[in-house]
Amino acid sequence: MCQLLGMNANVPTDVMFSFAGLATRADEHRDGFGIAFFEDRGLRHFIDHHGARTSPVAELVKRYPIKSDNVVAHIRKATQGRVALENTHPFVRELWGRYWVFAHNGDLKGFMPPLHGAFRPVGGTDSEHAFCWLMQELAKAHAGVPSIDELSCTLRELLPLPARHGSFNLLLSNGQALWAHCSTQLHVLERAHPFGAATLADEDLSVDFAAHTTPQDRVAIVATTPLTQGERWQAMQPGEMRVLLGGRTVAAGPCSWVRG
Amino acid sequence: MCQLLGMNANVPTDVMFSFAGLATRADEHRDGFGIAFFEDRGLRHFIDHHGARTSPVAELVKRYPIKSDNVVAHIRKATQGRVALENTHPFVRELWGRYWVFAHNGDLKGFMPPLHGAFRPVGGTDSEHAFCWLMQELAKAHAGVPSIDELSCTLRELLPLPARHGSFNLLLSNGQALWAHCSTQLHVLERAHPFGAATLADEDLSVDFAAHTTPQDRVAIVATTPLTQGERWQAMQPGEMRVLLGGRTVAAGPCSWVRG
Repeated sequence: MCQLLGMNANVPTDVMFSFAGLATRADEHRDGFGIAFFEDRGLRHFIDHHGARTSPVAELVKRYPIKSDNVVAHIRKATQGRVALENTHPFVRELWGRYWVFAHNGDLKGFMPPLHGAFRPVGGTDSEHAFCWLMQELAKAHAGVPSIDELSCTLRELLPLPARHGSFNLLLSNGQALWAHCSTQLHVLERAHPFGAATLADEDLSVDFAAHTTPQDRVAIVATTPLTQGERWQAMQPGEMRVLLGGRTVAAGPCSWVRG
Repeated sequence: MCQLLGMNANVPTDVMFSFAGLATRADEHRDGFGIAFFEDRGLRHFIDHHGARTSPVAELVKRYPIKSDNVVAHIRKATQGRVALENTHPFVRELWGRYWVFAHNGDLKGFMPPLHGAFRPVGGTDSEHAFCWLMQELAKAHAGVPSIDELSCTLRELLPLPARHGSFNLLLSNGQALWAHCSTQLHVLERAHPFGAATLADEDLSVDFAAHTTPQDRVAIVATTPLTQGERWQAMQPGEMRVLLGGRTVAAGPCSWVRG
């Protein structure tokens, strides 16, 4: 199974990934990985269709403490589409002068809506097709640049449609907020000051909460499975969508304008 | 001045960049760098708004022999837009299910055409605005996916417009061809079998021509200034556009359908 990892923080936070654990633990994760780090509106996008254990790109990400407020990462087990760079998550598009990053865990069967807008898949995965459809529908739903509330309402309408066609665990970010949708499996951890054990760490992901934190700092982590023991990881429910903004879950809505 | 480097080859070719030379030679190149490598339809995109001398990303690119058939690279001296990740070339957009990569050397004064299409700048540079306009106009000019010939004809019509507003040396690639437009300074070198001295190299760029080449192999390099001595670098003329395909310059056109 693919692994999703996301982070949303209210101040740029160091995230360091070690692929050693994931690669050792799960031999099936040989079909590539990718990580996108937002730095304000800018984006660093590292992908490799070679396994995380041997990739020089993984080595870089492991050693380079990039400060980011929104991170989306994916370790791939190919189920649809051949193992190739163009099929490696996360995918990136631009909409309304913002980069949008999308990573998906699961399979969609027969979800091939027509793409009549400005977004077309480059590779051959069901995931990228669904992402292009999502961007197209967001673009159609809003004449101008929408607020996070408005985006969240639209996403709440849209995400159940592909989800009917299979499992649709996903992470989506535009550098402001991180949207997480659970279809079968996704967990959320929200951390705030004081940062207890100082570091959240397993073999795969460490976030340095301790260094230079202030009482105002908040960080939220989303992962397929909990990365630590003894912390309050919340299992998301099938069909649940979370909006993470400023390092915490925020309510999406009110969405009356959608129904009206 | 910014430095442009591009490569187009008929088989995936190793390109290795050493930023040591550029960084030492030109102290003004402290405002970031970026490199995009196509691997078939897929794209690796490395950018950093830190100088190439100190960047871990530069270190990776220097050590990782990525095989690519189309490369676009840029070392930045900021003239417009603040030094930030979102202002770092090359820029990437998707059109017709292909990634498009754009890097620009020069300044455009007062070229701010309306962007009414699907492409908006994320950062604040004149370059990214011009790129978004170019993508918009390409999208408008072709109902379906155009051929390289058709694209070249459209580009030949479009590129003179921004070029009237300043200097517009640029590299553009969709992973199939590399288009180079010279406004003030750009040089091209085309190499074919037998690959004489085996390696084209200076402190900044080395392309391994010797390893595993066959008589059919061809590579074209485009650079702001010639990278080697004693080779047949051709200075492009102001206003000239080159279409590099399969490692050599090809004719663009006939373009009668544009005039018709």
